[in-house]
Amino acid sequence: MSHGLDPLVLVGVAVMLVAAKLCGELFERRGQPAVLGELLGGMLLGALALAGVGTFQALRTDAVVGALAEIGVVILLFEVGLESDLSEMLKVGVSSLVVAVAGTAASFALGYAAASLFLPAAPALARLFVGAALTATSVGITARVLRDAGKLQTATARVILGAAVIDDVIGLVILAVMKGAVESAGAGGGVSASAVGWVALKAVAFLVGAVVVGKLVVPQLFRGAGKLEGRGVLLALAVSICFALAWAAAALGLAAIIGAFAAGLLLEEAHFEKLPRHTKHDLNDLLAPVSQLLVPLFFVLVGLRVELRVFARPAALAFAAALTAAAIIGKQACALGVWGRGANRLAVGLGMIPRGEVELIYAGLGASLLLTDAQGATEPVVAPTTYGAIVITVVLTTLATPPALKWATGRGDKRERQRDE
Amino acid sequence: MSHGLDPLVLVGVAVMLVAAKLCGELFERRGQPAVLGELLGGMLLGALALAGVGTFQALRTDAVVGALAEIGVVILLFEVGLESDLSEMLKVGVSSLVVAVAGTAASFALGYAAASLFLPAAPALARLFVGAALTATSVGITARVLRDAGKLQTATARVILGAAVIDDVIGLVILAVMKGAVESAGAGGGVSASAVGWVALKAVAFLVGAVVVGKLVVPQLFRGAGKLEGRGVLLALAVSICFALAWAAAALGLAAIIGAFAAGLLLEEAHFEKLPRHTKHDLNDLLAPVSQLLVPLFFVLVGLRVELRVFARPAALAFAAALTAAAIIGKQACALGVWGRGANRLAVGLGMIPRGEVELIYAGLGASLLLTDAQGATEPVVAPTTYGAIVITVVLTTLATPPALKWATGRGDKRERQRDE
Repeated sequence: MSHGLDPLVLVGVAVMLVAAKLCGELFERRGQPAVLGELLGGMLLGALALAGVGTFQALRTDAVVGALAEIGVVILLFEVGLESDLSEMLKVGVSSLVVAVAGTAASFALGYAAASLFLPAAPALARLFVGAALTATSVGITARVLRDAGKLQTATARVILGAAVIDDVIGLVILAVMKGAVESAGAGGGVSASAVGWVALKAVAFLVGAVVVGKLVVPQLFRGAGKLEGRGVLLALAVSICFALAWAAAALGLAAIIGAFAAGLLLEEAHFEKLPRHTKHDLNDLLAPVSQLLVPLFFVLVGLRVELRVFARPAALAFAAALTAAAIIGKQACALGVWGRGANRLAVGLGMIPRGEVELIYAGLGASLLLTDAQGATEPVVAPTTYGAIVITVVLTTLATPPALKWATGRGDKRERQRDE
Repeated sequence: MSHGLDPLVLVGVAVMLVAAKLCGELFERRGQPAVLGELLGGMLLGALALAGVGTFQALRTDAVVGALAEIGVVILLFEVGLESDLSEMLKVGVSSLVVAVAGTAASFALGYAAASLFLPAAPALARLFVGAALTATSVGITARVLRDAGKLQTATARVILGAAVIDDVIGLVILAVMKGAVESAGAGGGVSASAVGWVALKAVAFLVGAVVVGKLVVPQLFRGAGKLEGRGVLLALAVSICFALAWAAAALGLAAIIGAFAAGLLLEEAHFEKLPRHTKHDLNDLLAPVSQLLVPLFFVLVGLRVELRVFARPAALAFAAALTAAAIIGKQACALGVWGRGANRLAVGLGMIPRGEVELIYAGLGASLLLTDAQGATEPVVAPTTYGAIVITVVLTTLATPPALKWATGRGDKRERQRDE
């Protein structure tokens, strides 16, 4: 009880959780991902301030609530790593890789162009950051639509899911590069090519190194842990590895979430066969309650931090619309990457549209990174207008995908039936 | 990611978790409660500073680590509340109540006497606080010993377990009173009887009020929640109720944990029959991973915050020894409270000896409460020497109980067999 926990944190977290679950439920019932509801729940709490109820404004800057949300996103990337099957990723291979690279490159370019059009005065790095924010596909909603349509075992689904995983990795490496570039940028936001190369090298080396070294060390650790009988040893060990790698990534100047993702990849095939009473299934089950409480806090907080006043300016709305268009059109380049037999190109392009977690992490990180301009003034890489536009892009791309994807797969089915007749 | 989470928090939590699980395991294997291992694990991390490794000293005062630990203790009291069966408590009734009151009163008086002997210069309130810290029995270790001996269904066990639950409630009410008294104390640490009465009234009214109002409102809430299908709704709702009541208690000037305990009592019989897919069992299961990660942080932090240098002074060791003696002798008054048929008086007195969570919460809270003396200087209610002595008392009373209790129950069996022959 020392250093007195501010009770506001307790009631704030309670309100954020209730908002997350109510709004998340509302969206899930309409076939939308819960994360959208959580975002809008946060924006709603923020909107209360415009209506004169300012109680929850303090949560936006509360250090403990912020830390809980960040621990949530570390846990989220750990889970994503756990769910990414390295060997499966290597199998879907070339087609997914080409699809992922084509989609991320085109989205990056169009995002940068939109930012240059609407933020001509912003430093180059800030505009590059917007482009980078649009790279990664959030595959959850697509996977859900394909599963509901009974199409999860098709070539189309395999290509999309493989590409989405590669997307995440590309998105995280670019994030590491952007973070390093911003931190090493001189006055005026200049970028040195060698600095960018160095960060990219570090990020890739870290991911590969962590997985290779981890595969040697982790089995020993779990063999040791297998001898422990106490409650929660498996969970505590897994979370400790996740946090330790997150710290190591941060110590190398990368984002902490890259370490968490590496920890997930590492434990994915994890050596749970060494633990007679524990199975891999258990780790996901044990993590679930922790992530159900912490992860929504991150997304509600992202929503809460959106400056709603920004949208009173038509230019801000136009920027949000342009960014959404860039995000949608950029991913249609994925269709060009589809290789040979059986995959529905149109569905691949549309299925890659949704943006989600990674974009919001970009928005959050960008809001906390400061750039020094030529006059020596500092400003965040992601200014409030850009922050709002990125959140809007996430919302719109996610809402647009299910109907578009249903139409495209239906169209593909019709064509196949006509061919069969 | 805004407001940059200090990566030290991540690696610190990882190290604390590993220390907790390793040391906890070591103690559990020897038939001791894991909480002792967690305490000593924290003291070990603190001892590294004496050995020149100061890395973990920053954790003692880190706001985020402190907040995580406090959320841990809120979750712990919520679990204790969930496990306390109100109707069972009313059944064991009179005998347990008399045992609890006799034990807490004697421990309070002896603790106050020990503090007066060793800290003659301390304000009356600080000495009363030490007495209060000794009141509550930590029944976990006793329950474990009785269960291992196959004696959990005996009259002795029922009296001990009932009294321990009542102890917790008495301990929490006294805590609320002490906190209120310290906060309303004038210069010189004076206490007004009306202020004490007012806080005691508030604490009891809050517990009763929360349970009564809650029993009316919670069924409606869960009936509503039963209609939600999203992941983690039950857990999020339960934790939100816990945090909201913790906040309400804090807003009334009580300790947040009293609200968490009330929330547990409230949800104990909870209205999970309204939730077809959820059972009460589920809530305990869902809370377990959260509590396995957060609760050990609290106890490791308590250990880490012990000023080991204090024990270089013989007077500090003597105070710790006197406090331990007061704690042990005080609970022998419980034997006087045992009423009639079948319960082993000696075993009841010995079984009530262990101190644990509530004492450590007193130590932590006391370290953060400041008293102003007659000269206008402020000092914590629980000074470093007292803090260390309370922790030592917890360790020694817990270590002493299992052998003493085994001896007493064995002796009781022998006498019974002799009577039967």
